[in-house]
Amino acid sequence: MSGGGPLPSWNDGQARQSVIDFVSRVTKAGSPGFVPPAERIAVFDNDGTLWAEKPMYFQLLFALDRVQALAPEHPEWKTTEPFASLLEGDVEGALAGGKKAILEIVMATHAGITTEEFEKIVKEWISTAKHPTTRRRYTEMVYQPMLEVLAYLRANGFKTYIVSGGGIEFMRPWVEGVYGIPPEQVIGSSIKVEFEMREGTPVLVRQPELDFFDDKEGKPIAIHQRIGRRPIAAFGNSDGDLQMLQWTTAGSGARFALYVHHTDEEREWAYDRDSSVGRFDKGLDEARAKGFTVVDMKRDWKVVYPREQGER
Amino acid sequence: MSGGGPLPSWNDGQARQSVIDFVSRVTKAGSPGFVPPAERIAVFDNDGTLWAEKPMYFQLLFALDRVQALAPEHPEWKTTEPFASLLEGDVEGALAGGKKAILEIVMATHAGITTEEFEKIVKEWISTAKHPTTRRRYTEMVYQPMLEVLAYLRANGFKTYIVSGGGIEFMRPWVEGVYGIPPEQVIGSSIKVEFEMREGTPVLVRQPELDFFDDKEGKPIAIHQRIGRRPIAAFGNSDGDLQMLQWTTAGSGARFALYVHHTDEEREWAYDRDSSVGRFDKGLDEARAKGFTVVDMKRDWKVVYPREQGER
Repeated sequence: MSGGGPLPSWNDGQARQSVIDFVSRVTKAGSPGFVPPAERIAVFDNDGTLWAEKPMYFQLLFALDRVQALAPEHPEWKTTEPFASLLEGDVEGALAGGKKAILEIVMATHAGITTEEFEKIVKEWISTAKHPTTRRRYTEMVYQPMLEVLAYLRANGFKTYIVSGGGIEFMRPWVEGVYGIPPEQVIGSSIKVEFEMREGTPVLVRQPELDFFDDKEGKPIAIHQRIGRRPIAAFGNSDGDLQMLQWTTAGSGARFALYVHHTDEEREWAYDRDSSVGRFDKGLDEARAKGFTVVDMKRDWKVVYPREQGER
Repeated sequence: MSGGGPLPSWNDGQARQSVIDFVSRVTKAGSPGFVPPAERIAVFDNDGTLWAEKPMYFQLLFALDRVQALAPEHPEWKTTEPFASLLEGDVEGALAGGKKAILEIVMATHAGITTEEFEKIVKEWISTAKHPTTRRRYTEMVYQPMLEVLAYLRANGFKTYIVSGGGIEFMRPWVEGVYGIPPEQVIGSSIKVEFEMREGTPVLVRQPELDFFDDKEGKPIAIHQRIGRRPIAAFGNSDGDLQMLQWTTAGSGARFALYVHHTDEEREWAYDRDSSVGRFDKGLDEARAKGFTVVDMKRDWKVVYPREQGER
């Protein structure tokens, strides 16, 4: 047990210490590593870094639930793939169609409605739906040690951003309450929206067309376009975050990069180089070569999910 | 003369009072119009709202200067329009090619370099270039009364954003110093950038391809995607801002919309319905119909540019 101090759900060790050392270094006025508060930007991947991502991205589980909910309005789905398989409960069969199938499922369930209608649907789902194997609510599958990192950084003058491959509008309705990250600090993938006047009132209507895919090279690009400052700290868990970590650490002065390595098949999941969701292969090699912090979830975290604390 | 109080460069009158009344209404704890600080989002157009835009958008004047600077590297421009006309000093002839010509000039002068190189070029230009008729630096052609509105809103807990048709990366290098608006609160048009590794170091390279045009319908779309909250106050000067003002005022609770009407041909310029730059026609009609505040620059502003104060 660590006696008080920041990051109480972290075991003493190199990973915890590296976070604390970095924060001390950039916040100590007059020190050579000092960074003014306005430049203390920290970026976090979401899936696999702030919350779990197995057996598949939670947004995809949301989409699958939406297919069931919308099926009565779409009789044609009974005979059209990938929907037909989904409605028969054969998720694997449906997803065998690869990216094309996933894109069809996402567009059918995420577009064609206004931004306000979509927000309402996400809020309803996130407050009621349960994970297929843990039976927890999805917001109870966030990582307690990472919540502590977010709070610790903000207490030290950092502005914390999400930079996720997931949809911006899928995250915004709940991340402020769960992570303390306001909507304007959520960066992610998006579909196009169109401005429309309906009986004199402007609405934004979600279109079934990808606008931006915030993964790999897309992450530093989105960070640049949206924040316009290079972050000084970046947190990820997969190869999709590598370019974000490279971009962050290539700046001058004190920089910090951390990878969460999923090593705990008892409390969560264990996966890395061979996983299709959250593959961590090139990233793991580069982390070792460049000295990024690599969190061994099993060894470094006292708890994984928040509720476990109460359960003790 | 108004005796002290906020907005000292504004003459007493309906326009000044409408700003003060709105701010009082949303900041008074316990009042029905109260808005929590996190939701106090105010959006400002830039060209013609925060700084001047005649005889043409200043970013276009930047592009024309860049054509002259880059001409030695482009011998082919001597015989290629619109560059040939520009190099002979015939701006009007060059721009006769319309949007296509402008796009060619912009792409030739804004792309093909890294984001860091472009930032350096903008910084150099903005600190040295002078306006063709006033001979002022461009940053001395910002509107003092609007600087006071920005400061007044921020002093009352507002987060102020730029939402401009101009380029994000053309604005960011100087707007923090001039308007007090940090890079992450600058929304505008953008060209695509690509992530590239150069000798092991990641760079972002600007591509000659439009990414997003932040005008008209684009403004509420960008506000939604970037901020994710509907603003409660919006400031513009042209038809290009109308959808932003409509989107802002369509929300529930206290809302504020203000149009700057260019009526002062002595101190600045006078133009509205027939102007190609900053056309204010549909917007003027809607402002009157909906009761938006319309600033009569000649009547409502004691000074236009900041330096006039010192000159008195």
